[in-house]
Amino acid sequence: MAPRKIAVIGAGPVGALAALYAATRGDDVEVYELRTDLRDSTTSPLNFTKSINLALSERGINALRSSGNSALLEEVLKETIPMHSRMVHYRNALGNTIEDSQQYDVHGRFQRSVDRGLLNKVLINELTKLPNVKLNFQHKLTGADFRRKKAWFEIQTDKDAVAGRRAQEIEINFDLMIGADGAHSSTRYHMMKFARMDYEQTYIDCLWCEFSMPPSDSGDFRISPNHLHIWPGGSFMFIALPNLDKSFTCTLFAPVSTFTALEQGADGELVTFFDRHFPSVTDHISPDELSTQFRRNPHLPLINIKCAPHHYADSAVIVGDAANAMVPFYGQGMNAGLESVRTLFSVLDSHRSIGDALSSYTTRRTKDAHAIADLALINYVEMRSSVTSQFYKLRKYIEETLYHYCPSMGWATQYSRVSFSNLPYSEVIERSKHQEKVLKTTLATGLLIPAIAGAYQLSRVPSVQRVLRRAGS
Amino acid sequence: MAPRKIAVIGAGPVGALAALYAATRGDDVEVYELRTDLRDSTTSPLNFTKSINLALSERGINALRSSGNSALLEEVLKETIPMHSRMVHYRNALGNTIEDSQQYDVHGRFQRSVDRGLLNKVLINELTKLPNVKLNFQHKLTGADFRRKKAWFEIQTDKDAVAGRRAQEIEINFDLMIGADGAHSSTRYHMMKFARMDYEQTYIDCLWCEFSMPPSDSGDFRISPNHLHIWPGGSFMFIALPNLDKSFTCTLFAPVSTFTALEQGADGELVTFFDRHFPSVTDHISPDELSTQFRRNPHLPLINIKCAPHHYADSAVIVGDAANAMVPFYGQGMNAGLESVRTLFSVLDSHRSIGDALSSYTTRRTKDAHAIADLALINYVEMRSSVTSQFYKLRKYIEETLYHYCPSMGWATQYSRVSFSNLPYSEVIERSKHQEKVLKTTLATGLLIPAIAGAYQLSRVPSVQRVLRRAGS
Repeated sequence: MAPRKIAVIGAGPVGALAALYAATRGDDVEVYELRTDLRDSTTSPLNFTKSINLALSERGINALRSSGNSALLEEVLKETIPMHSRMVHYRNALGNTIEDSQQYDVHGRFQRSVDRGLLNKVLINELTKLPNVKLNFQHKLTGADFRRKKAWFEIQTDKDAVAGRRAQEIEINFDLMIGADGAHSSTRYHMMKFARMDYEQTYIDCLWCEFSMPPSDSGDFRISPNHLHIWPGGSFMFIALPNLDKSFTCTLFAPVSTFTALEQGADGELVTFFDRHFPSVTDHISPDELSTQFRRNPHLPLINIKCAPHHYADSAVIVGDAANAMVPFYGQGMNAGLESVRTLFSVLDSHRSIGDALSSYTTRRTKDAHAIADLALINYVEMRSSVTSQFYKLRKYIEETLYHYCPSMGWATQYSRVSFSNLPYSEVIERSKHQEKVLKTTLATGLLIPAIAGAYQLSRVPSVQRVLRRAGS
Repeated sequence: MAPRKIAVIGAGPVGALAALYAATRGDDVEVYELRTDLRDSTTSPLNFTKSINLALSERGINALRSSGNSALLEEVLKETIPMHSRMVHYRNALGNTIEDSQQYDVHGRFQRSVDRGLLNKVLINELTKLPNVKLNFQHKLTGADFRRKKAWFEIQTDKDAVAGRRAQEIEINFDLMIGADGAHSSTRYHMMKFARMDYEQTYIDCLWCEFSMPPSDSGDFRISPNHLHIWPGGSFMFIALPNLDKSFTCTLFAPVSTFTALEQGADGELVTFFDRHFPSVTDHISPDELSTQFRRNPHLPLINIKCAPHHYADSAVIVGDAANAMVPFYGQGMNAGLESVRTLFSVLDSHRSIGDALSSYTTRRTKDAHAIADLALINYVEMRSSVTSQFYKLRKYIEETLYHYCPSMGWATQYSRVSFSNLPYSEVIERSKHQEKVLKTTLATGLLIPAIAGAYQLSRVPSVQRVLRRAGS
């Protein structure tokens, strides 16, 4: 088969992996990225501050493993820090600070903390080694005709911008465009003019702001490096993920009204807020530094996106956040994005026609995309508050006990299926529902037997027997 | 107060009316329209064939009436044809063709058929008389910064396009941008980069295709001109609205699969389909003409759009389809669009700050926008099939009887409140729900009284009395 010309829009982790999959299959790959090359740049990528940390788990790892580039996964894993447990920081009813380490998986599987920029660089470096991949930075997709398979880009270099020169325009042809250009995808926007796409975006009432917790004076991690740290606060929370340089990247999540109050309050109020809700954080990030970072770093929204189809005819498909942006509370955004690339190419490999493949991809993927978006929203509630509740711990205990002792029955927690398996997300939900039903039936039976026994005892009381006889007559 | 600079995007009926409202208030108004001036053009506007007919009712009329231009409404009404009733065409169980005229309103109020292009021309003509309005055609909104209140347009003239010359770019400043640029609004797209907008678009499983029914050989209307004609067909339907030139503009609505089957079938199959489901249509549109029009005219989708907010800060607001595209089955799309302009300016008039006004507009308008979108979807089912059912007729009869005899009680049908009042759509739904509850309670009471009476009779039977006494002991 003649090589196909694949245009990948977006050179983030998902776009770079898609380019790698296509190039490995012998396609001619052209990658178009709006931003500057993140390897050259001393400025921060995206909207972010120093770095943004992600939790890499089985789905992401499997997608890297299946890329056909055997060294890639090893390269990436070198850049990660294992997180075996959640560390939940809170004050108990007596006001004492509690640090409660909750293992992620009774079989010892774990999450990995990875810097988005580092992961991206490893992938881009692999791409530069391939003769059939051409990387184009500072290329903004301005239009696409998915019937004629043509697209238009504006090329705006920094020099042009400074000199006030008008951006240059180019036209390209392609066989297939893969849009991996994030939640505000331009590919999706242009595709929506061709595909009859159902689309839904929702902002949740939550903003986030990043903070950096530096290494200690002796150059070590200030808190345990092999944990994902959570300070649940009811309607808000603070989390910290470890970096290779022994700092932590931390994030405050809170409702818009809380942010507004903190923005309008004095610096002291921010520190008081932290000391009240996130015990010991200001021991590790100085009050001055905390206030400075809160004022300097952007306060960003969270969006949930669902759409269908994910493709148009045989010429366009969207992957990752472009098709399926979710809130970050299941740590699955990037994992789902990388998985969508693996799924897309496995479907492309098994169909002779691209159009049939893309149609089949939409059928398979949209239900999983919607499932993980829903789970991520639900997990927000769990992370903010439930992780300290006794009921949550009891349920977790029962589920994990079953999971530990009954692996042959196929028992597993939803969390482990999402994080440590490659079972399609929609099936994870189905199996969890089934397990819940079994548990509830068990519980109901457990209540019914004493109820029946009690009724039997009652039926032996003479006056009750009289009433029963009369009713029967 | 100094005149504000208002940029209106879109010169359709809704945009033109918004420009008129702003100009009447002394604002400097600049209108930017993507297409050519529809007054010059001999080509068909938008995607349509010869014309697209709309049902104009009270909300649209009230918005024109309240524009401050006293001649405007009169000018528009001259271009309309009253439609007092629905004419439902169907075959009964015996196979006889029935024409069932169903009056719209027991108080004699009616719908008006109006050509979108004619309405648009009247409005544009009024605008050209005003010194503080500048009309710009073939201007494509390519970007907007709603914080700095700047926007960018590409001007592509036909000459440039033919010569392959690059479009010219301009930058403008504005105080307020009003986006009236339709379902695929560019204003909304750029606004979504600033406002945290929840947005949902859904395509329903229905396409539409326009047909034209010519005047008769003697130059008269072929079917009754003062009706909106409906041929309900279960999952599909055909409708016809009268034009001033004594033709009818007709529309076929059908599921995608029906369209696909008809597209793939021979011409004869289309005619058979019409003869089976839409009795006598091919007496008025010849089979050849029917087939030709079906092949030539576009087969277009229907989209439902809900979003919130409808504004950003004090610099941008969207009206009409841009904020609230709905399916056409309540005949309210344009009426709601024109009403949204009236509501916007009444809110602007009653607030000192534009930001407060827009915020209040979003609060008031989004719930009404969502309400009419929902009603239009529900009405699709009613129009396609219920209009021939006996149950539908009974309900209509009961409701209309109450409406006719109990006006002092505030009884009215939902249809009359939507079409012939200016009650906010959300309140229409509330009142209909309340009426339904009252009717159900009445019905339940009507059943309960005989039930109680029956139980009383039963309680006088001696054997029953014995059982009751025992139970009471």
